[in-house]
Parts: sequence; structure tokens; C-alpha cells
Amino acid sequence: MQSILRIDMTELAATFESVPEKYLQRAGRWLTSSIVFDEVPPTCHSLGPNNKVVIAAGIVSGTAAPSSARVSVGAKSPLTGTIKESNAGTAFAHMLARLRIKAIIVEGKPAEKDKYWTIKIDKDGVKFVPADEYVGMKLGSAYESLFRQHGDVSHTSILGIGTAGEYRLGSAGVCFNDMKGRATRYSGRGGMGAVLGSKGLKFIILDDTDAPGVEIANKELFDQGRKKLAEALTSHAITKPKGALNAYGTAVLVNIINEAGGLPTRNFRSGRFEGAAKVAGEAIFEINKERTGKEVYNHACSPGCIIQCSNTLYRRDGSEHVSCVEYESDWAFGPNCGIDDLDTIADLINRCNEYGLDTIEIGGTIAVAMEGGLANFGDGKRALELVDEIGTGTPLGRVLGSGAVTTGRVLGVERVPAVKGQNMPAYEPRAIKGIGMTYAVSTMGADHTSGYTIATEVLGVAGEADPLEKKKVEMTRGFQYATAFIDSSGHCLFIAFAILDIPSGFDGMVDECNGILGTHWTGDDVVRIGKEIIGIEKAFNRGAGFTAANDRLPEFMSREPLPPHNAVWDISNDDLDSILG
Amino acid sequence: MQSILRIDMTELAATFESVPEKYLQRAGRWLTSSIVFDEVPPTCHSLGPNNKVVIAAGIVSGTAAPSSARVSVGAKSPLTGTIKESNAGTAFAHMLARLRIKAIIVEGKPAEKDKYWTIKIDKDGVKFVPADEYVGMKLGSAYESLFRQHGDVSHTSILGIGTAGEYRLGSAGVCFNDMKGRATRYSGRGGMGAVLGSKGLKFIILDDTDAPGVEIANKELFDQGRKKLAEALTSHAITKPKGALNAYGTAVLVNIINEAGGLPTRNFRSGRFEGAAKVAGEAIFEINKERTGKEVYNHACSPGCIIQCSNTLYRRDGSEHVSCVEYESDWAFGPNCGIDDLDTIADLINRCNEYGLDTIEIGGTIAVAMEGGLANFGDGKRALELVDEIGTGTPLGRVLGSGAVTTGRVLGVERVPAVKGQNMPAYEPRAIKGIGMTYAVSTMGADHTSGYTIATEVLGVAGEADPLEKKKVEMTRGFQYATAFIDSSGHCLFIAFAILDIPSGFDGMVDECNGILGTHWTGDDVVRIGKEIIGIEKAFNRGAGFTAANDRLPEFMSREPLPPHNAVWDISNDDLDSILG
Repeated sequence: MQSILRIDMTELAATFESVPEKYLQRAGRWLTSSIVFDEVPPTCHSLGPNNKVVIAAGIVSGTAAPSSARVSVGAKSPLTGTIKESNAGTAFAHMLARLRIKAIIVEGKPAEKDKYWTIKIDKDGVKFVPADEYVGMKLGSAYESLFRQHGDVSHTSILGIGTAGEYRLGSAGVCFNDMKGRATRYSGRGGMGAVLGSKGLKFIILDDTDAPGVEIANKELFDQGRKKLAEALTSHAITKPKGALNAYGTAVLVNIINEAGGLPTRNFRSGRFEGAAKVAGEAIFEINKERTGKEVYNHACSPGCIIQCSNTLYRRDGSEHVSCVEYESDWAFGPNCGIDDLDTIADLINRCNEYGLDTIEIGGTIAVAMEGGLANFGDGKRALELVDEIGTGTPLGRVLGSGAVTTGRVLGVERVPAVKGQNMPAYEPRAIKGIGMTYAVSTMGADHTSGYTIATEVLGVAGEADPLEKKKVEMTRGFQYATAFIDSSGHCLFIAFAILDIPSGFDGMVDECNGILGTHWTGDDVVRIGKEIIGIEKAFNRGAGFTAANDRLPEFMSREPLPPHNAVWDISNDDLDSILG
Repeated sequence: MQSILRIDMTELAATFESVPEKYLQRAGRWLTSSIVFDEVPPTCHSLGPNNKVVIAAGIVSGTAAPSSARVSVGAKSPLTGTIKESNAGTAFAHMLARLRIKAIIVEGKPAEKDKYWTIKIDKDGVKFVPADEYVGMKLGSAYESLFRQHGDVSHTSILGIGTAGEYRLGSAGVCFNDMKGRATRYSGRGGMGAVLGSKGLKFIILDDTDAPGVEIANKELFDQGRKKLAEALTSHAITKPKGALNAYGTAVLVNIINEAGGLPTRNFRSGRFEGAAKVAGEAIFEINKERTGKEVYNHACSPGCIIQCSNTLYRRDGSEHVSCVEYESDWAFGPNCGIDDLDTIADLINRCNEYGLDTIEIGGTIAVAMEGGLANFGDGKRALELVDEIGTGTPLGRVLGSGAVTTGRVLGVERVPAVKGQNMPAYEPRAIKGIGMTYAVSTMGADHTSGYTIATEVLGVAGEADPLEKKKVEMTRGFQYATAFIDSSGHCLFIAFAILDIPSGFDGMVDECNGILGTHWTGDDVVRIGKEIIGIEKAFNRGAGFTAANDRLPEFMSREPLPPHNAVWDISNDDLDSILG
């Protein structure tokens, strides 16, 4: 039997509760959003005692299902004020599922200020251990020390917050370890790390030694499903071995999106970056070949991933510089800050990993700070100094760490490319309309993963569409529903490339879920459940005071034509309001 | 004939337009809110080209009506995101009315960054003069220089912004001159100075030499009205010569509100301040007597005011230290920051006047910064340094200048006593429930002047009510409607004390308006018009995305009992939602 583990940080108490009937099928985002909706008053202060952080693995996490080690972290966001779910790929998901913990709910707030705790969870229960010695420490050293004390990555996994979370910054992510135990995998967006920081929770350490493992209702159906999904993943051009993602990582998108004229450059002043090729996935591959003397393909971020898109950038001496240079991080510090040097970008990403920061929000914020005159576009040295200010909590650092909107407000900058308080990721809505529609109406603020229309608009997955074409209400709606389901299944969103093109892959995903839960879902249920999840999230946001007026892109995008297409943002409010109803 | 003066800051063009039929009766807040609603898209960026600043004197401004020199400044607020109207008492109101300019609408935004302009308006028209020499200058010296160049206070008046407006800070007020030409009278709240700053407008200078004067439809009725109002004002205990306001200024409230247990102390941690008596209006009177050797009564902030509540604090050597120590400023830097020294408070107020800052927002912000560990409560020296950081635009200063909510967000402080982004003024809602209801639902964020229930709850004006009594839906609604009318009439809100207690005074106000406009309004029309104004403002806010969820006090007030009454905020959401419907 699974249970829900409730952690009361006011009393430092842990309770295992039986899973309410209505939550039995729910996992991942479906479950985190449900519990946040059911238990968190939507008008509460996100850093106060009434907010809660919910941590849940997906339906198929903890099993042999391919690419299924996603863990969702949900709460009311201090960055956006909306409900939030942010997920990461990490062994933590598998271990949580194998311990049969359906969700961890972290609630309350300790009376003692600046006191931090580690929570250790294994098959025998929960222990609270003071974490004071780790306060102010960089996460790389902290994770090394914790793994030394608590066991290696084969049976131990860590969730943690860095100094950014201690400072309760809106850009503070929740960090998980990767396959080598490094502090590099993030539920980055929305400031979930700040909420944990406000509760004095520094680390959760799982040990799945002798864990009972995931119960599977229909083993045969499940095995059939995971094989169908694996076949799809290993045959699709984007997800197959030595395919686009495995060879070039997500940064394969740099050249593609630049070519489409939709690569936001210098705080969204252009859709093309003259230095794009120098920071693209192909460049990483070539540089690594030059520096290590061999072709380096990418590795898995978490056990059981067969897409294996996580890259490493090597230094000139052949040592590792950073893992991983994701497309979003690469873009955020590269084109968006006018920086075309991969080693500088690697340094910036490393800093974010050490301090516990969301690279997208921080890259976007540095670009807004450049717009506001705190640095020149392209000045990597100054960008590094600014990120160090954030990580060490100087007054300026706290502004920047509060995200792009706060930085814009403090510096009096109007050109802040954000929705509902969250900076836009690496796709220009003026040049690629569908993704702009996702940004506008997503329940989480500007978020590409909420409804990744880029798949169709640029990559030709699930059909083709002109990026500049405006009729995409149904496209973004469909992607948003499907995504909400995938985010709940425990799979990496990247399975979408394969399952949207290969019907048997889609069936495989559904079979896996049915195999685990004993349900009889079809494709219709995927849409039904996706719609239900987003409905729950929208209801929370309405309670928090959000209306259609918040489902809008920033005004300057309707006014400033974006090179090279010289397009403005021109989707009607009626169209936006019809997407999610 | 009156006209509307439209100033286009993109083209540096000025146009006099005829007044549309629907605006003919409207003035002051009624007119600024109407024009903002009609012309500003509610979702626009408050610092972008689509926001507009509307400046309008009241219905009876420019005449011999007593205490009638109020000018309203309206726009979408960068502090709150709502519609905003903030009014000040100054000769500027009279001169604008005498020039028969019903409203100035400032719109657009110059292409050239950091270029500032002065606009000179007289009976012959409008001139644009570069203001570059005044950029970065303190307002005291700037106003001295401008009066030297343009003429004295008898026929010249100045509107201006300080460095705070140049930095586009949410706490930047709009400054007007007092009777001696000093830069001391403010439309302080809501960051109206930042909106003017974003438009490159530094000063508006009026010269009413040979101005045609105000047209009066029924002189006899008007004269009858102003006499009735004057009689009421000069006979009521609060507003009469040598009465409470004339003797002790608005700071007469310090002891009264402290006694009621509603004086917010140390960032709203208590309702009583042990040093209250040292900073009260009575103390100012006594200190002045000691320092000047005579009893000093207060003076008028603007020509024609018979209440005369504007005080001066003198130094030990008998020279002027500051004018004026308003109750709100006194409280904001005194009890709310734990400071009990009037000369320190005077220094802090002077700094705000020099930099162009709203004292309420800045005092509240310094208290939040103290809560966040940037200074100790009571440390006046550090408070002065922090205000200097704001006025000189350091990174920390820009955070603080962005107001209490941004400061709380940056410092990770949950205890921010604000509504809709604006810090609460000097009355504790837990101890005085009616004013809390006004804070919650006011269209402008936490604002005591929106519906000053203190009059009844503490001062015994218009009846009496226990401050802790919760049944005040009708009381706050009534005050809000009446206030919206008074803010449109051109009178100082302080006439309310007299006219709510003395029926002939109320009739006098209505007679004055009917005399000017040729209307036949009664008391019912006052309510009708007040309701209409608030309806317009609420409609703008709905368009900007505000809902009932925003009409709430901060969560901590429902949780933390406030000494000495140990009361929490406990007004139901249903009650709040029924106030303005």
C-alpha cells in the first residue's frame, strides 16, 4: 500500500497517512496540483506557514518504464503567485516510488528563524537531522558530503536547496542529484526552493534499500506498454540513440530556432543571434571531440532513460567543465545575454547549480539587468559577478534573484518578457505564435513545457505548421492537455516527440499506466485527465485572483516588430481566452 | 470655456481640446478616473507609452470656496497596478482652474532616453523647455531656481518630480509647492511621479497672470454655499481656528490613535508605541514654544484654506527644520520604525521632500527593511542612510524605492502590511476594523483617505462606533462614496469632519458645486456620484485583472494577535465583498 508522508515543519513531525480514494490514480503533477488545490488557501502568502510543498513521482516512476524518473514539486509560487508544478529527471523519483510514498507534503513553518533541517527517509521511517553545517555552502560540496555520509547513488538520492532557497528568492529551484551524484538536476522554475527555504527544509535524503518497490496491477500489460514505448523512442529521429538529442543534447535547438528567427537575443530584441552557431549543440559536440580526442555522445540524467540527452562540456585539458548545457540554460546566458562563448556559459550554469538557481529565470534576469544598464550585453565577466551577487545574497543579488519582473520593476525597465511574473524561455512568441499562446495562458506563467507547440511549429512533429500562422488555439490546447498527462505519468516530456508521431508509442504510454493502475484508459482519457488537471490549476489561480487579464503577453511585444520577420505579437484576446476556457 | 490640454511627450506637442459633453460636470478625481478609464488600456505597462497621467483641479478650485485648492493626479499606478488618484493641496489647483484648463493629459513617451522637459503654461499657451540642468538635483534647490526664473508664488506654481521619479520608483510622488514656494506638498501615493518620469516630464509650471478665472453659473448660490461651509469649518472643534488641527496639526492623532491601541508600531507588531507622546502633535507645539519662545499655530498649505493644519518644526536655534510634519509622515518614520526623536523624523521627511518620495510608502518600506534585518528598529541614523540610498539610486535604494512589497519580496519578508502593493498607512486594521475594510476594498490599495472611518470609530465624528466592532460594511461604503465626491469637488478631505457633523456645512459644499456648475444636486447626488466614481475605478481594475481575491489584508494579520487588544483581523470575505459589490 502506498501512503502520503506529511512533514510538519512547525512541530518537526512526520506522519504516514493512507491515500484518500480520490487520489488513488493521481501522481506527478496531477497529484501535486490536486493537493495544493485541496489544502493551500489560494490567497495565502507563498512564504508563510499556510503554503505547502508537495513532492510526487509519476504513475510509472520506480519501474522499468523508459525515461520515467520524473518527480514533480508543487506549491503556490512566490515568483508568480499562481499554482506551480516543476518537474525534474532524477533517481529521486524512482526511489520515492519504490518506497511507496505517493507524495510528500511539507507544511508549516518553524518558529526558530534561520534553522535548517535535513529529512532522511528510508523503509523504516523518517528522521530529522539539523542541517546547520550546510547553510551557505555551495551545493556541489554539500551533495558530495551528504553522499559520503548517507550512501552512494545506487540507493541514495537527494533533494536540496542552495543559498538561493535560504534567501527565499523567487528564482530558487529545487535541486536533485544526477547519475553521478552531482547537484545538477532541477525542478527549476517558480521558486519552489524558496518555499522549502521558508519552511527551514534544506535537504530530503531518500534511501531505497530494501524498499518494497512499485505495485503493478497488470504486469503483462505494463511490460507490453514499456516495450512499445521503448521501440518508439529508439526509432524516432529526435529521441533515438545517436539521434538529435543523444548527439547534440537539447542545445541542438539553438541553430534550428535561430534559423526560424525565433531565438530571443539580447533580452528579446531580435530573433536571430549572430553567434548562435558558436553556442549550438553541434558546437558542443565538436568542441568536446577536439578537447577529448573522441566523439562524446550524451548520457542519461536519471536511471532508465533511453533518450540520454544530458551532455557534458569538457575543458581544454579534457576535464569536465559542466553537465549539463541544456538548450534553455545555454540560450538564457548565451544569445539572450549576447554571450557567444560556451565556457563562459558553462561557468554561469555551474554557478546556478552551486547556488540553487533556475537558469532560465536568472539568464532572463541578467538580460533585463543589461537592458537596465547594469552590464553591457555580451559582458560575461560582469554576468558572472552578478550571479555571484545573487548566490551570496548581496542587496543587488537579492533583487536579481527575485527574478526578471522584480528586477525590471526595481530598475524601471519596461521591456520585461514575462507572463504572470515568470520570464519567458527560449522561444520568441512574435516569431512562433503557438508557443506565445502557451506562454500567455499557461497556468504557471510563461512556460514552454506547458504546451510545447514548437514540436509542430518548428520540428515537424505531429504535423507541420508555419510558425507565423496565427490559428493555433486547438494546437496549444492539445499540447497543454497532453503535457499535463505526461507530467503526471512520470515520463520525461521528451517522449512526446516519439509518441505524437508513432501511435504505438502513444499506446505504449497508456498501456504502462493501465498496467500499473489497473485502469482501462484510452487516448480519450489522456485528454480528459489533462483537461482535469489544468481545470484544477485554473481554479486555484482564480482563487488567487487571476483572470483573463493576466493571460496576456507584455505590451511591448504588440508594439515592437521583431527582426528578422519584423512580426509583432498579434493574437487576439478572444483567441487567447478561448484556449483553456 | 474650459478646455482639456493634451500633452504628447512622444511628439512634444500640446493641444487644447474642447471638453466632451460627458465630462462637463466632472473634475478632480471624478475626471482623472474617467479619463484614465476611457483612454488607458488597463493591462498596459504603467511605465510604457500607453499609460497617461491626468491632472485636474476640483469643481470649486480656483474660487473663494474655503479649503478648495486640491489637485488630483491620476494614472495606472506602477506601485499597485490599479487605477490611482492622489491629490494634494496647493496653489497649482487654483491656477489650473483659473486658466480654465479642466485637465492636463500627459501621454506618449519620448524616444530619447533620460531626456527631461519642463512645460510652461500660461494664458497664451504652452512651451516645452529642456530640464536637463535639473536632473539629479534636490527639489528644494530646483524649486528655488524655478521660482527665481518664472516668477513668485503669487502667480506661479510648480508641479515636479525628484530623482525618485527619474528612477521610475513606485514610491515616487508628484511634488507641488506650498505657500512659500517650497517643494513640500505631495500627491504622494501610488508612484505617479514614476509615470511622469517615464514620460520625460520633470516640471509643469503654471502662470495664472491675467487668467480668465473660474466661470460661476450661479454666483449667489455659490456665495451662500461657501459661507455655510466656512461657518461649519470655523465652528467644528477639529477644524476651527486654534482647534485640534490648527494647534497640533494632523499629528494630533498620534496620542489619540496610540490610546486606541491602533498606532502601528515597529512594522505593525504592536498598536501602542512607548514613545508616542514624544512625537505627537502636542509635543511639536511644546517644542516649538520652547525653541521659538512663543506659541506657534499652524498655517495653510494652500491659498484660501481656513483649516490651516500645516505645521513647521523648528530647530533649537529657532530656524525652520521642516514643514510639514504630517501625522502620516510622523508615524511612518516614528512609531512604525521605532524612532521617537522628532528631529530625526524631520530629517527623514526633508529627505523625502528633496528626492520626491511618498513618506508613507518609504516609512513603511524602511520598517519592512528593519524587519528583514537591514537595520534595527529605532536606528534613525541607518534610516537616513537608507533614504539617501533611495534618493541617489543605488541598487539597494532602488529596491527600497520600489516600495514595501518589492522590498519584502527581495528580502524574503512575509510580514508586509500592504494591500494591492501599497503599504498601509497609520491605522492598525486589527484594532480599528472599519479602516481595515477600507484598506481591503479601496480601488487604490491600502489607503486611509479612501474611506476615513477613523472619523467615527475614533474621533466621534458622524456618530460613534467601537473600533473593534466588526459590523461596518455600511460605514466604510458610506465614507468611500462621500470621499470620492469630496475628492472631486476640490475640497480638502478634512472638510468632512465639519460637514458630517454640521448639516449646513454639508449643504454649503453642495451649494458651492451647484453654484459653479448650475446643477441642482442634493445629498443623494453626492452618494450617486461617489458610487459612480468608484464604479469607474473598479471597472478599470477588473480590466487590469483584479478580483475579490485582491481585496484582502495580508494573511499574517489573521494569525498574529496585535497588542494591546490582542485582536486579529477577522472580517469575513463575504462582508468585504459586499462593501462595494
